[in-house]
Amino acid sequence: MPAPLLDRRDLKFMLYEVFDVESSLTRERYSDHNRETIDAALDVAETIAEKYFLPFRQKIDTNQPTFDGEKVQMIPEIKQALDAVIEAGLASPGADYEMGGMQLPPLATSAVYAYLNAAGSTTMGYIGLTSANANLIEAHGTQAQKAKWVEPQRSGRFAGTMAMSEPGAGSSLADLTTTAVPRDDGTYQITGNKIWISGGDHELSENIVHLVLARVKGAPRGVKGISLFIVPKFLVNDDGSLGARNDVQLAGLFHKMGGRGQTSTALNFGEKGGAIGYLVGEENRGLMYMFHMMNEARIMVGTMAASTALCGYQYSLDYARERPQGRLPSAKDPLAPPVNIIEHADVKRMLLLQKAYAEGAYALCLMGTQLADDEHTAPTEEERAAAHELLDFLTPIIKTWPSEYGPKANYHAIQVLGGSGYVNEHPVEMMYRDNRLNPIHEGTTGIQSLDLLARKVPQNNLAGYRACLRAIGESIAQAKQVEELSVYAYELEAAVATVNQTTEFLLAAMGEQDIDLVLANSVKYLDMFGHVVIAWMWLRQGLVASAALAGQPHDADVAFYRGKLQAMRYFFRYELPEIGAWSTLLMNLDDTCLGMQNDWF
Amino acid sequence: MPAPLLDRRDLKFMLYEVFDVESSLTRERYSDHNRETIDAALDVAETIAEKYFLPFRQKIDTNQPTFDGEKVQMIPEIKQALDAVIEAGLASPGADYEMGGMQLPPLATSAVYAYLNAAGSTTMGYIGLTSANANLIEAHGTQAQKAKWVEPQRSGRFAGTMAMSEPGAGSSLADLTTTAVPRDDGTYQITGNKIWISGGDHELSENIVHLVLARVKGAPRGVKGISLFIVPKFLVNDDGSLGARNDVQLAGLFHKMGGRGQTSTALNFGEKGGAIGYLVGEENRGLMYMFHMMNEARIMVGTMAASTALCGYQYSLDYARERPQGRLPSAKDPLAPPVNIIEHADVKRMLLLQKAYAEGAYALCLMGTQLADDEHTAPTEEERAAAHELLDFLTPIIKTWPSEYGPKANYHAIQVLGGSGYVNEHPVEMMYRDNRLNPIHEGTTGIQSLDLLARKVPQNNLAGYRACLRAIGESIAQAKQVEELSVYAYELEAAVATVNQTTEFLLAAMGEQDIDLVLANSVKYLDMFGHVVIAWMWLRQGLVASAALAGQPHDADVAFYRGKLQAMRYFFRYELPEIGAWSTLLMNLDDTCLGMQNDWF
Repeated sequence: MPAPLLDRRDLKFMLYEVFDVESSLTRERYSDHNRETIDAALDVAETIAEKYFLPFRQKIDTNQPTFDGEKVQMIPEIKQALDAVIEAGLASPGADYEMGGMQLPPLATSAVYAYLNAAGSTTMGYIGLTSANANLIEAHGTQAQKAKWVEPQRSGRFAGTMAMSEPGAGSSLADLTTTAVPRDDGTYQITGNKIWISGGDHELSENIVHLVLARVKGAPRGVKGISLFIVPKFLVNDDGSLGARNDVQLAGLFHKMGGRGQTSTALNFGEKGGAIGYLVGEENRGLMYMFHMMNEARIMVGTMAASTALCGYQYSLDYARERPQGRLPSAKDPLAPPVNIIEHADVKRMLLLQKAYAEGAYALCLMGTQLADDEHTAPTEEERAAAHELLDFLTPIIKTWPSEYGPKANYHAIQVLGGSGYVNEHPVEMMYRDNRLNPIHEGTTGIQSLDLLARKVPQNNLAGYRACLRAIGESIAQAKQVEELSVYAYELEAAVATVNQTTEFLLAAMGEQDIDLVLANSVKYLDMFGHVVIAWMWLRQGLVASAALAGQPHDADVAFYRGKLQAMRYFFRYELPEIGAWSTLLMNLDDTCLGMQNDWF
Repeated sequence: MPAPLLDRRDLKFMLYEVFDVESSLTRERYSDHNRETIDAALDVAETIAEKYFLPFRQKIDTNQPTFDGEKVQMIPEIKQALDAVIEAGLASPGADYEMGGMQLPPLATSAVYAYLNAAGSTTMGYIGLTSANANLIEAHGTQAQKAKWVEPQRSGRFAGTMAMSEPGAGSSLADLTTTAVPRDDGTYQITGNKIWISGGDHELSENIVHLVLARVKGAPRGVKGISLFIVPKFLVNDDGSLGARNDVQLAGLFHKMGGRGQTSTALNFGEKGGAIGYLVGEENRGLMYMFHMMNEARIMVGTMAASTALCGYQYSLDYARERPQGRLPSAKDPLAPPVNIIEHADVKRMLLLQKAYAEGAYALCLMGTQLADDEHTAPTEEERAAAHELLDFLTPIIKTWPSEYGPKANYHAIQVLGGSGYVNEHPVEMMYRDNRLNPIHEGTTGIQSLDLLARKVPQNNLAGYRACLRAIGESIAQAKQVEELSVYAYELEAAVATVNQTTEFLLAAMGEQDIDLVLANSVKYLDMFGHVVIAWMWLRQGLVASAALAGQPHDADVAFYRGKLQAMRYFFRYELPEIGAWSTLLMNLDDTCLGMQNDWF
């Protein structure tokens, strides 16, 4: 029996026990849903993943898309798989009924996508970006724009992209140079070059809707002069039929180390006379609108990284259970039959590490998903505002921690397999390559760490920061009441105190010291905070597991909950203590890196 | 100007200033050599690397060897490059004159190969294995075997492999099943299947000399019944001409994530009637002989990992110096021109991390190379024995630390380049893939950690362990005398005390506790010891740099030595403190991993 893509028991644990998706089903939007409809959606997703993605996973990886000068060529299995997702109603399962969605709660949607992502790797990126593109237009577009661009994306006829980076403007969007010139008919003429555009061209859909950042002629320089435009591959007539080809040309495809399920493109806008663009919202507020999509994409990236880690964990776990090799150090008889490698302490360590990273990261992404839902559908304005505050604060961590530790999990999946992990008979080397993109796109780890320390912590008079610490404190208070958890509760309390002390020190230093110095080790700050948040995710899982065990569940569940407690213990014993060294560096305002001179390298 | 493959200034620093290769030139074996001949060898290596390897680096990576059912097909540039190495006399530059070598000191040979490895990536593996194969036969073969198999490998006409792993015996050689049946003429008939044989088949040389581990019929089970055989692809007549094809058949090629410059093969011995093999040394002592090659290969793997890290560092450094993007947090004017990314503190951190890992790891490999030389050519028996003792102890660290931290360095090379690092326009993603093999082959990290803690530490009444601590202590004593280094000297002294305390605790526990428990966190032990050894390598470099600065060198050298001191400081501030948490785990005999049950996962 092949390894499962994901552990369904764990998904149910996350959805129903930890994040209690059922409690949101009382909200009007989700009133048609219940545990049965959610389980059914998971079943469909698992079936499609196993039938349409898994058999072609390697073929997709070893057959990169090519550009024949006119069109993008890719193996037909990609379109077949995406069509299967669309036909099953999973292109936008969370969307409004009127847009063709099924108003599935976001937590359930995340689990649905975890299956598809685990098998479909990066191919699912087409659908994720399309959905996020539609969400942005739904939030900020005119009624006419929504009618023209949202519904076809929800139904899967059109695909969507986000077009931000340029050859000279990657992390620094302030420097982008793509221009937009108003035309008499209210549209704009767009001219410029964009790179790293995922899904920027292909033949998978009738049309591609690019959301393009550009400067209107005469706009202020920097980020205050950026506007957002809808620039389709084909113009669309008012009756919804396709019109003329717009002047958006594929300049080339990038050949990536992984993530080969999705094209990464360089696009030229307006090289043959002018690309037509439609302004979204007001001029010069484009970056604010784009953050709608970017924030969603950041949770998506974290979730993708976590899903890939979960999948690699399951695969290497299955391998470790089947592969006999070696004996334990205590074996009296050197000629005794070999044990399966899962018996070796270091293999257990590599599996526990993966479990702790992957399930901890996925829990964080689900919490982010839940907050993103609450932000819109929680019953009271107060709850909605609180969810927004906390999510906004946590976004750089949700994006980054899974992206940094997901590849580390996959590193260990390879190591469990040994030489077999390094060859493409097994998928773990592909996952390792796929996952390496995640610390880069949608804001690198360095960018996210500056966002956290320099913006998200101080903003609104530390409101988000304090809300986060309060939420952690609530779990700690609960855990202190449980005998087997209280030691972890106190350890997490000490870790939070370390974070808080470090934060207060840094905030004070921001007013007194060179800001470059105070921010110099921001990545270590994010790492420290991230570890504490993941320890919190484990304590929350531990609370549920501990309570469940007290209820005397059946044997398989006893084993499952014991595993949760052991993974929590792993994280607290092997990982959380690392924050001490990072905090020291931060509290010392260590300037080793900042002080390094160019010519000393 | 493209990025240099390696920093020649740093190579000279290592060779002439830190490891003082010139002091060994008084030994008779090296009496023809001087600084000029060594520099000339480096020049030749750099030229060949840039002319024959660099231009085809990507082509080699993107055109894996294939098996057409009869022969291995690969792009012709591979043979051209290897022939250029051979013609330049660099196939075995360290070998005896009478065998066609030039008796180049091993330290210089290592630097020569660093150039070739940096550009030639894994293609150089053919030559490295061939050399190590010849070294083994030279040490343990008969005169006739040496005449027949060593010289053609030294001259590059034959290539060599080591054939150990089997489908059921990877890390556990005790379980290998390949058999050898004595024949009337003194040869043996070899039958079995071997996998992961690097360079196991190709058309690059006239012949391939496999060194094969097998069991003579009736031999004891386990490691005590393993013998070593020379099994050539083609038999060789007594006059040196090629004879009949031997029954060694290529069963298939593995498709690897990286390292595509070298075939990895599955070989069938004796499927068509019988492969002829020639016993090396005595029956049942094969594993001991093979360790001659394995130990050499372990230093080679560490060096390869370090070279790849050095090369990625240079590449990303060059990129960071040229790529403008963003502004410092302190920039008053958000519209000021962007800075080159090397100005950003976090980019400096990622470069310093690479410098500290790569140059620290390479220093360790050079120390190992020097010890391997001293083992054979040091003037007194006492010095030779001491070198052997220390090298034997350090080998698992020399193999593992560069292999674990080299890929981490390459991870950061990618991150410095951002999206550009993820695509094959730049070589850093290839280095990341290439380097991932190193923690696996020639003994995984888990295996090495058990070798260190369970064997190398206690053996000979802790002689190697104590010799290592004494050697570190000597550097500490020197550094205490230097004002700018004394703080690091005391920090390293404290770290050594931590290691020693942990070691004594574990050794005591070995006698009292479950051995599986005591060894359960051996990887953390290796990590801890490795970090201390690398800190030592940095202190040694710091001593040289500090002394050189006191001599008022010219400006470029001032910058170089300042960089060394800063990288040392980085390692002591950002890396060494990690050992505290690892020591705690070890001293607690933490059983979180060991206690994890199969059905809890």
